[in-house]
Amino acid sequence: RIKASGLKLQLCTNETQATREDFVRKLRGLGFDISVSEVTAPAPAACHLLRERGLRPHLLVHHDLVPEFAEIDKTNPNCVVLGDAAENFTYANLNEAFRLLIGMEKPVLISLGKGRYYKETDGLKLDVGAYMKALEYACDVQAEVVGKPAKSFFESALAELGVPPEQAVMIGDDIVSDVGGAQQCGMRALQVRTGKYR
Amino acid sequence: RIKASGLKLQLCTNETQATREDFVRKLRGLGFDISVSEVTAPAPAACHLLRERGLRPHLLVHHDLVPEFAEIDKTNPNCVVLGDAAENFTYANLNEAFRLLIGMEKPVLISLGKGRYYKETDGLKLDVGAYMKALEYACDVQAEVVGKPAKSFFESALAELGVPPEQAVMIGDDIVSDVGGAQQCGMRALQVRTGKYR
Repeated sequence: RIKASGLKLQLCTNETQATREDFVRKLRGLGFDISVSEVTAPAPAACHLLRERGLRPHLLVHHDLVPEFAEIDKTNPNCVVLGDAAENFTYANLNEAFRLLIGMEKPVLISLGKGRYYKETDGLKLDVGAYMKALEYACDVQAEVVGKPAKSFFESALAELGVPPEQAVMIGDDIVSDVGGAQQCGMRALQVRTGKYR
Repeated sequence: RIKASGLKLQLCTNETQATREDFVRKLRGLGFDISVSEVTAPAPAACHLLRERGLRPHLLVHHDLVPEFAEIDKTNPNCVVLGDAAENFTYANLNEAFRLLIGMEKPVLISLGKGRYYKETDGLKLDVGAYMKALEYACDVQAEVVGKPAKSFFESALAELGVPPEQAVMIGDDIVSDVGGAQQCGMRALQVRTGKYR
């Protein structure tokens, strides 16, 4: 409907358990006509930041997200990229990421979001934000958050659209990540009362 | 030497990977004449607090610490007790503790310390404080810390000795947990430059 009206569309998701390709495939399966270039997601935003600053990440992310970082040099890491690693959040993997961070002259922790928890069919799960807090505390660092509600995240979506913030509207179900983040960026925002709204 | 001089002695440890019995056995093996009643440790302090407030804990602690809680009713938990669970810090166990906490009308999180990390022969490990921060953030609660540097911890050691704070001296290698905690309690404190001092 939005597309048919001639309006430009960019999807902003904090999905970090799958590549954009997988995400788009899922949406197309649900009947939405969407392509990869119309999706703004934390992993590509992180790749952009890594390239810009010459950072080589150690990844603590979901298995299915790893392909997003295929082109990035990961040898001799000088930062840690943290996503919702789910089953990869093992005691050994957390200690490994911690040891790398604390061993850096200036620890750099990049987090693909800062959600507290989310719901799956088998119940609530700790989200990436909780693990981010654990590493922040242990290493006495502040993580750089990529993804909603980071201003840079919305700016990259706007750049993709080629539209200034005052001509864009953000639609989302999360008052902080979606509405708050977009407003801080100079966009107008609409909150829908579906999804996780309550 | 201290004992031979006629001075009363109480060991204050934040050890939560073993029962006091195991801890004393290890020290005796090293040649120290010490008994279980001369050890103040976080787990018994937690048990005291649980009993006092009628709390039934879900335990996320090290396997070897579980016997300390043998006498405590653990059915239908209304709080979570967090220790340095080490290998028990699995994704599943963390989610379980989180779900119980977030499901409580008023989540109560009791942490057996708040250390950031410690060193083992195979390298640095995240300590209980990091996992405490993760659960605090996810559930928007503040943990109650039992163990050093909590004032109540030093007070229970003094009670064990039957000595007022101004007649006691704390000796330790940690400026915050040992020296700071004791001073806040009205004791004098000596910092030794051994152990983890650097």
